[in-house]
Amino acid sequence: MLWVMSTPSPQRARSAAAKQQRERAILDAARSLGAERSVREVTLTDIAAAVGMHKSAMLRYFETREQIFLALTAEGWEDWSAELRARLGELADGDSDAVAAVIAQSLVARPFFCDLLAQAPLNLERNVSLESVYEFKTVALGEVAAVAGELCRKLTLTDRSAIDVIATATSMAGALLQMAAPGTRLRTLYESRPELAHALVDVEPQLTRILAALLAGLRATTTAMDPSASA
Amino acid sequence: MLWVMSTPSPQRARSAAAKQQRERAILDAARSLGAERSVREVTLTDIAAAVGMHKSAMLRYFETREQIFLALTAEGWEDWSAELRARLGELADGDSDAVAAVIAQSLVARPFFCDLLAQAPLNLERNVSLESVYEFKTVALGEVAAVAGELCRKLTLTDRSAIDVIATATSMAGALLQMAAPGTRLRTLYESRPELAHALVDVEPQLTRILAALLAGLRATTTAMDPSASA
Repeated sequence: MLWVMSTPSPQRARSAAAKQQRERAILDAARSLGAERSVREVTLTDIAAAVGMHKSAMLRYFETREQIFLALTAEGWEDWSAELRARLGELADGDSDAVAAVIAQSLVARPFFCDLLAQAPLNLERNVSLESVYEFKTVALGEVAAVAGELCRKLTLTDRSAIDVIATATSMAGALLQMAAPGTRLRTLYESRPELAHALVDVEPQLTRILAALLAGLRATTTAMDPSASA
Repeated sequence: MLWVMSTPSPQRARSAAAKQQRERAILDAARSLGAERSVREVTLTDIAAAVGMHKSAMLRYFETREQIFLALTAEGWEDWSAELRARLGELADGDSDAVAAVIAQSLVARPFFCDLLAQAPLNLERNVSLESVYEFKTVALGEVAAVAGELCRKLTLTDRSAIDVIATATSMAGALLQMAAPGTRLRTLYESRPELAHALVDVEPQLTRILAALLAGLRATTTAMDPSASA
């Protein structure tokens, strides 16, 4: 089997390419639908219809709708991590407010990824095989490590603090976007009743404030422990 | 109708009491099931079976399973807020590390409430009437304001900062508990594969660290803006 994979016959290579193309089409359809509505509202039937396949045929490529969205979450981590690391690289060392702003902006600019971040631990990871969870976690942890490395270089944080920042940023972006509920009847309700004004979440400024304070607090602790670690 | 309600006949009073008793029995059954398994795994049929009612009869008391769990989330806010405020009241003024520890402990001691906190904006609020959302938000915002008041008294925070702390504490407690996934096959997977060690979330220490740093950072900002505000 390994031998066949390493020296594929032209026919096998063609079918592998066709399979990959099909998988890509399914992922792209799920991404479009999820970005248009919200992840929770997209069924396997919707994706099958969008990609022009029978639901049963689609299940030869993915186990469940959740596996499709978990694969998109992994891609979201890769995409977000690459852009964030590039933007962090452009900042002056030690400017934690700028780091907070860039992290918040890069997440708010990806509402579909934020939706997936909220859905992943609650729903997506619970309805796929352990192999799929393993694959997803491997990608996500790799990107967490990469972003943490860049944060440590910019801000003299410990590795654990950098991981705490990423956990807070991604979890809060997911949670705040759900609470903000843009474009929904919930949002309309909050806007129409002055006594619910505090239910109106404005994701970017709130996330920026929280991350800026978190970074300031973490750096104060690092500096207190080891004054030479200060930038 | 208002007249009838304000001077109820004995029979009406009896039936109102019976209705309330039934509602209580339904809520208690849902709470037991949700605490035993997890909120996501409890169906309306399960609750009906546990309380010994027909599903159709139960729908005269609650719109959906989500309304039942949203009512329990509101009760969770009241219960958590009361205990947290009492415990904060016992702390020395200005000790933000102790405040962080008490907030984290009080949430971790309530895994069912944390499960509800994660489910509420994603699932529960989306599957009930706007009246139910309004009722829920009114209770939750009232408790947020009460806890914020106590935080401001203890730590000389601005009201907005106190609300940011509560949003972070409750959202992160919900998210971290989902990621920790105690008692699940996911947790077993993370524990069995050393390369997934970073997927192993230990909620209380991580939440305590994040809240302690957040509070330290927020207080540094408050003090920088107005040195006389420092405790």
